[in-house]
Amino acid sequence: MPYVNIKITREGGPEGTGPSAQDKARLIKGVTDLLQEVLGKSPATTFVVIDEVALEDWGIGGLPVETYRATLR
Amino acid sequence: MPYVNIKITREGGPEGTGPSAQDKARLIKGVTDLLQEVLGKSPATTFVVIDEVALEDWGIGGLPVETYRATLR
Amino acid sequence: MPYVNIKITREGGPEGTGPSAQDKARLIKGVTDLLQEVLGKSPATTFVVIDEVALEDWGIGGLPVETYRATLR
Amino acid sequence: MPYVNIKITREGGPEGTGPSAQDKARLIKGVTDLLQEVLGKSPATTFVVIDEVALEDWGIGGLPVETYRATLR
Amino acid sequence: MPYVNIKITREGGPEGTGPSAQDKARLIKGVTDLLQEVLGKSPATTFVVIDEVALEDWGIGGLPVETYRATLR
Amino acid sequence: MPYVNIKITREGGPEGTGPSAQDKARLIKGVTDLLQEVLGKSPATTFVVIDEVALEDWGIGGLPVETYRATLR
Repeated sequence: MPYVNIKITREGGPEGTGPSAQDKARLIKGVTDLLQEVLGKSPATTFVVIDEVALEDWGIGGLPVETYRATLR
Repeated sequence: MPYVNIKITREGGPEGTGPSAQDKARLIKGVTDLLQEVLGKSPATTFVVIDEVALEDWGIGGLPVETYRATLR
Repeated sequence: MPYVNIKITREGGPEGTGPSAQDKARLIKGVTDLLQEVLGKSPATTFVVIDEVALEDWGIGGLPVETYRATLR
Repeated sequence: MPYVNIKITREGGPEGTGPSAQDKARLIKGVTDLLQEVLGKSPATTFVVIDEVALEDWGIGGLPVETYRATLR
Repeated sequence: MPYVNIKITREGGPEGTGPSAQDKARLIKGVTDLLQEVLGKSPATTFVVIDEVALEDWGIGGLPVETYRATLR
Repeated sequence: MPYVNIKITREGGPEGTGPSAQDKARLIKGVTDLLQEVLGKSPATTFVVIDEVALEDWGIGGLPVETYRATLR
């Protein structure tokens, strides 16, 4: 009975405001299938929770992610 | 000094958009009381954080929860 | 289909090394019952995960918890 | 730059004490590939953290998981 | 490659709706610097994720935080 | 009343098995001070929880961290 939490930045997708519901459904299916294939976990008791995180709330390299990316250009 | 995180789907409640503040207060009180009764934890240092998760962000059975429920009908 | 995570310090219990399996079972039942009573959530899709955290890994008041408690005496 | 946390019960595997390092490597690769395929996320900034949870610390149906499974037999 | 999650109540800041982007950037930098100084962790692989939690979703002392604060006055 | 969770790989430190209790105390103090300085949060209600993660349980670049590092040499 796995529990999987996927955190991603809120960006991209059809309107630039995050992944579409279809993409999220693909993530849910892909992770659930993976746990079944590798560890034999039952999909019926596999939970997947996706969190979208605003860009200003995600830091890497000591900077908010947008600022960090600008330093890489 | 326990820390409790409760994740639920954002649905139901008085307007169909999630539990009311009163229901959340009941959850907070119930969990805090439980930790005091079972383990003697002090309420003053018991944190409870509730996260509401959009239906499209919660997967079970390899599907977003609404799609999954439809398969059970 | 709630997911609940309970984090507590690893102490107390029958051997001083954390709650007994019986106490954990009481926590699991208590939280699950609470979510059913308050929000009508099905126990069959309610997950509860308990994490015990070593005392040196838990801080409050800017100090590891044991040091902090000593300051309160 | 996704962050993925996979929580599973500590059981199964070559010695009955949880998945092998090889199985964990497959999970890490599978999830990372999935995020690249579906959302174009860079593997270099995709973190995957696996938590194994003792059976007595995982509840479902209001019961510790082993007790719960026994009720299903 | 640390992962740090900071959960705070959504309040205060320039408009009373939570910390400013500048304050969040200071948190990100401060935590990243700390991990580099104390443990030698590379900023390039240090993730910081900030979650703002609505006041009605945060409990302490068995009460939602605003109610709790009112009891302390 | 912030809650901070710091996840790091279990390595380094005086015996190669993770940070010393002194280093953890520095992390706890540093994060708590930071939240007080930037956001005015009270240390008395600031929790910090440190999780050490086994190297085989941490993935980056689609690989367990040790394998990943070997590819960088």
